[in-house]
Amino acid sequence: MTARPDNDQPQVAATASCCVPPRLQRLPASEAGHRARQLKALGHPVRLQILHLLAQAGDALCVCDIEAYFELKQPTISHHLRWLKEAGFLAAEVRGTYTYYRLQPEALSGLTGWLQQLTM
Amino acid sequence: MTARPDNDQPQVAATASCCVPPRLQRLPASEAGHRARQLKALGHPVRLQILHLLAQAGDALCVCDIEAYFELKQPTISHHLRWLKEAGFLAAEVRGTYTYYRLQPEALSGLTGWLQQLTM
Repeated sequence: MTARPDNDQPQVAATASCCVPPRLQRLPASEAGHRARQLKALGHPVRLQILHLLAQAGDALCVCDIEAYFELKQPTISHHLRWLKEAGFLAAEVRGTYTYYRLQPEALSGLTGWLQQLTM
Repeated sequence: MTARPDNDQPQVAATASCCVPPRLQRLPASEAGHRARQLKALGHPVRLQILHLLAQAGDALCVCDIEAYFELKQPTISHHLRWLKEAGFLAAEVRGTYTYYRLQPEALSGLTGWLQQLTM
């Protein structure tokens, strides 16, 4: 599955169509890819629950505290935490034996602002 | 992979932990599931490009016009359009031989508003 050549420049359609297509710009490929990865990271109920817990806590939570809210095995929770961390929504800090996770609200507000702009 | 029994009521953690977990509420399972499906629908660069094209068009676009913007086969574009339609972001209307798709901006604004609330 390949998209039209992506050189990070918005492109204008000029391919054949049954109609006369309107001349619309595409998003830069790197922008679409980055935002799609962030949205995919949010696209799981457990990951939304984790964000919600951390937002309520208003502070970093130990991974064991997060695990206590789910009937899921530790590797599964770690898998979901990794998704959120790699998408920029969480920061992790090791304190002794445990890793603590803290919400990065500016990453979420950046994404929501971008989504609002997308359809304006 | 099963979460704590989901009866759509926010629940309070009371399971064992190495620390004393703060008492935080979970999102109702149906709400987390619905929003996760919407976010997953947005979590693909082609689907973001489609939304962006329809937002610029400011009107319904024929499926053939949408296809003209991508070097993808028609079934692939239809697959992505179906994802967006099932998540509520697009409405479809058959006119003669072609299906026209129109953005449903209120679905996107509902999601962004929910995301903003999630971490407040």
